[in-house]
Amino acid sequence: MSPTAERPSPDLTGVFSVLPTPFDAEGRVDVASLRKVVDLFLAAGVDGLTALGVTSEVARLDERERALVLETVIEQVHGRVPVVAGTTADGLIACLELSRQAEAAGAAAIMVSPPRLPKLGSEAVLAHYRALAEGVGLEIVVQDYPPVSGFTMEAALLARIAREVPPARTIKLEDPPTPFKVELGGVFLLEELMAGAAGAMTGFAYPEMLVAVVSEFRAGRLARAADLFYRYVPLMRFEFQEGLGMAIRKEVLRRRGALAHAGVRAPGAVLDAGTQAALDLLLAWVKEKQGAPWICV
Amino acid sequence: MSPTAERPSPDLTGVFSVLPTPFDAEGRVDVASLRKVVDLFLAAGVDGLTALGVTSEVARLDERERALVLETVIEQVHGRVPVVAGTTADGLIACLELSRQAEAAGAAAIMVSPPRLPKLGSEAVLAHYRALAEGVGLEIVVQDYPPVSGFTMEAALLARIAREVPPARTIKLEDPPTPFKVELGGVFLLEELMAGAAGAMTGFAYPEMLVAVVSEFRAGRLARAADLFYRYVPLMRFEFQEGLGMAIRKEVLRRRGALAHAGVRAPGAVLDAGTQAALDLLLAWVKEKQGAPWICV
Amino acid sequence: MSPTAERPSPDLTGVFSVLPTPFDAEGRVDVASLRKVVDLFLAAGVDGLTALGVTSEVARLDERERALVLETVIEQVHGRVPVVAGTTADGLIACLELSRQAEAAGAAAIMVSPPRLPKLGSEAVLAHYRALAEGVGLEIVVQDYPPVSGFTMEAALLARIAREVPPARTIKLEDPPTPFKVELGGVFLLEELMAGAAGAMTGFAYPEMLVAVVSEFRAGRLARAADLFYRYVPLMRFEFQEGLGMAIRKEVLRRRGALAHAGVRAPGAVLDAGTQAALDLLLAWVKEKQGAPWICV
Amino acid sequence: MSPTAERPSPDLTGVFSVLPTPFDAEGRVDVASLRKVVDLFLAAGVDGLTALGVTSEVARLDERERALVLETVIEQVHGRVPVVAGTTADGLIACLELSRQAEAAGAAAIMVSPPRLPKLGSEAVLAHYRALAEGVGLEIVVQDYPPVSGFTMEAALLARIAREVPPARTIKLEDPPTPFKVELGGVFLLEELMAGAAGAMTGFAYPEMLVAVVSEFRAGRLARAADLFYRYVPLMRFEFQEGLGMAIRKEVLRRRGALAHAGVRAPGAVLDAGTQAALDLLLAWVKEKQGAPWICV
Repeated sequence: MSPTAERPSPDLTGVFSVLPTPFDAEGRVDVASLRKVVDLFLAAGVDGLTALGVTSEVARLDERERALVLETVIEQVHGRVPVVAGTTADGLIACLELSRQAEAAGAAAIMVSPPRLPKLGSEAVLAHYRALAEGVGLEIVVQDYPPVSGFTMEAALLARIAREVPPARTIKLEDPPTPFKVELGGVFLLEELMAGAAGAMTGFAYPEMLVAVVSEFRAGRLARAADLFYRYVPLMRFEFQEGLGMAIRKEVLRRRGALAHAGVRAPGAVLDAGTQAALDLLLAWVKEKQGAPWICV
Repeated sequence: MSPTAERPSPDLTGVFSVLPTPFDAEGRVDVASLRKVVDLFLAAGVDGLTALGVTSEVARLDERERALVLETVIEQVHGRVPVVAGTTADGLIACLELSRQAEAAGAAAIMVSPPRLPKLGSEAVLAHYRALAEGVGLEIVVQDYPPVSGFTMEAALLARIAREVPPARTIKLEDPPTPFKVELGGVFLLEELMAGAAGAMTGFAYPEMLVAVVSEFRAGRLARAADLFYRYVPLMRFEFQEGLGMAIRKEVLRRRGALAHAGVRAPGAVLDAGTQAALDLLLAWVKEKQGAPWICV
Repeated sequence: MSPTAERPSPDLTGVFSVLPTPFDAEGRVDVASLRKVVDLFLAAGVDGLTALGVTSEVARLDERERALVLETVIEQVHGRVPVVAGTTADGLIACLELSRQAEAAGAAAIMVSPPRLPKLGSEAVLAHYRALAEGVGLEIVVQDYPPVSGFTMEAALLARIAREVPPARTIKLEDPPTPFKVELGGVFLLEELMAGAAGAMTGFAYPEMLVAVVSEFRAGRLARAADLFYRYVPLMRFEFQEGLGMAIRKEVLRRRGALAHAGVRAPGAVLDAGTQAALDLLLAWVKEKQGAPWICV
Repeated sequence: MSPTAERPSPDLTGVFSVLPTPFDAEGRVDVASLRKVVDLFLAAGVDGLTALGVTSEVARLDERERALVLETVIEQVHGRVPVVAGTTADGLIACLELSRQAEAAGAAAIMVSPPRLPKLGSEAVLAHYRALAEGVGLEIVVQDYPPVSGFTMEAALLARIAREVPPARTIKLEDPPTPFKVELGGVFLLEELMAGAAGAMTGFAYPEMLVAVVSEFRAGRLARAADLFYRYVPLMRFEFQEGLGMAIRKEVLRRRGALAHAGVRAPGAVLDAGTQAALDLLLAWVKEKQGAPWICV
């Protein structure tokens, strides 16, 4: 069931932005904001989009909402860039079903973490990816994010998956220290590119910076890439706070005009006044001191 | 939205058996076997049944299958005992939706673990149960099973939930040492009863023993309850092996004629010949040496 | 630095009892009780003794006390059986130093868990055991107990350690389901023997039973071994409760006359009246109903 | 045993630098480098020093080395600032003993994490700090760093410890998101100060920046504090990489002339060429672009 005959492998390199899932004031999926945020990321020049990732709050969506989000994204993108769909599930059958739905909807690839299971082992993880590759004709982005999956994939296992399961050769690493492994990441983007990464897959609310860094880096202008990147690191660090990150990111995207409401679903963080003040201060600094006058504060 | 006006609180004490979800050879939900296993547990005299628990492999079912299982169980039970429905979800909205479906389907109570979330805290857990109690008119069985939820609920938190959220006063503890807390459990059933537990909620494949132990204990015949219980402990210990338990339990229920197939869904354990041989030996011993001639080997 | 020239490899098969560390009423190491408990285990016919294991409360001993315990045990054993010394440490240099002290004191082997370190990986674990094998002329018992080490060693890693580090070919597995791996264990002793284990390394307070089970099993009398074993399982299960186990075991050994005091060091469990009552009931049952009149209640 | 009569409580606010433990090429404690690094931090104007913390590799030191390090630091400081001594141990008796040695050596306070123990609970943690406060006449810095202690202290527990154990009112939080709690930290220093933190306790290799940020913040010049802080965030982020951090920090301190060798003890990270190159690039950027000409590259 290899896809090679029907369509060429999608290019999964460069900047892939993980989309947030916008909700309205009542907590329902906000389709209009979702279309806007797709457009914001595309206007920033990203190479692809990822829907239904961990930071899309996928764990808090039901099946109907998952389908609604994916179909909306693919319709709004309208073929301009490839769309990766998160299809992680605790059972193989459920993961296969979600993956087939993603394929039918027009996704270019699926992104899958190991299934959550106490006593999971390397052989079971490998078997999971192998079965997916046999059952679905899409590239597989292997996601390594232990806080969610509960399982740490060592470098040797990732290499073995890439070797034994050819469609699963793209890896999204989020287990620090990430520069040690080739990665699609965020707050260590520059170091990861230096270590050989093919790009970044992150939801950072200023994808313009990621696109510019990757572009400068690929053009061989390392110092320029570094200068651009470092200027944004204080903001990235702030946005990527464990436990708070999605709430901050949505607030920034709201300020940028893409989201009507910034709320995350319960159980999730609510921004207090102190965090808002710290965000104000930081955005003002990036805008004024680091040469980014277009930043919205 | 208190249920007290419309219907009396169900009695959640005694032996509640957590039902396995039977699958056919192709891995589909096997409704006929599910009906048979319901009848087996009812014939054993259990006080209630629990569907869609952790050991029901609920994490590997999709939403349609969850509904199918719950509706089949409630139909087959036909009011003979109360049915508890597992409705744990990572998001509050999804948990509420599943809980309302369970209420509409006729469940007597819901069983809910804390939502999985990195950095979850006691206040968020309490808020979760409070919102459930406000949104659904059912009793809530609070499940404390850290390997699945990723969160350890201390005794003080459990007491606080029971105090501040009256419908959530029933607790299913599975975090050892369980006798220290009042619990609905299994392999420490006797010790838990001695510590004040109101019963047991477990999927042990010989519920007859659990029913008899609780009955003797309640009649004040501690030594008789102990003798009955201890004789089965070697088997319970074997059936409750972490990582293997569901596969063994389904095999026993297959031998008892309730399940057509014993398979668990991937990723899950498959019984090897050695485990089968150890099970044979153990069942033969219980049957011959411990006075249980009706045990099937 | 191979030990083969100087002395033959010790026989690490059979029943090795992990010794508790007795404390007096003030919490000091109680040397007299330690000698008595050594004698109790030797009289029971064990094949070896292990000092300074996890259940010896080694984490709560200082360096002087570790040395005192090991020297006392070796002196009291006086060559009658081999003595294994736990020498786990978070750093390689410290582990080497403890191991050399154990070698100098006359230990037959060392028992070592992986060092605790966030982000530890398989290669680092292998390097740790390799360095130990190069630096110390003793057999190494590789201990796999994730709750303490924080690292799960998969079967493939254990096999690789045994292959690449010849002195580290003995494995003490405590990560369930243990029968799946060849193990030195306890509450699944029979099943482990059936799966090929060479013996048991556990601190169970009635080592007589372990010795008899292994003896019957080796003589080819499986049914007799099983009958003996199963009769004690209710007691083993009770003694091996997570969080309570050492307190119960010490109480049983106190009742057997080996320990003057049953206390464990803080932070550790204290037996309440309910647990004592449950223990009384259980010991009486084993003594009266299961043909063990010599059991002390 | 209150120390109030004999000496006033030390001032634990401001910047406290956690000292690395330098090793020579053979891995032995390098006393001369330790003296130099003490002088480097003091020259930077820090308000205090912390020895034997997690990033001091205390887990890889033996008892003799712990004493040597603490005595060397206190002698070299010679009363110029208060010295905090890490005295965490898995057992209460061992922790008390280390704490008394620290008191005798002249430490101004001790820093203690909860003891590592499976099934540890809030009451046991509170009892641990209470017993320390009763047994030692020093202030206690409560360290909340779950990756090492294995136990997450919720805000309510920290507040309760501070309330019920007066000497334990200083908290070193390292469990993100840290700005939510009042903290002594690092990469979120500014946000923590804005949230009410009394200072920072971190080992960052350019303490000059931390001192300046705290100074500007206390003088009410928030914008100036922020500008200073943000310029260093890319470097802090790089230095604080999980699993790599100590190796990078020691390399920077080596380049600054304080350490003769940069090695960490096994098992620990070794810097590869790629990480060195990334560090070079980053230090050059801070030096040239962010107005810190004195930075050594």
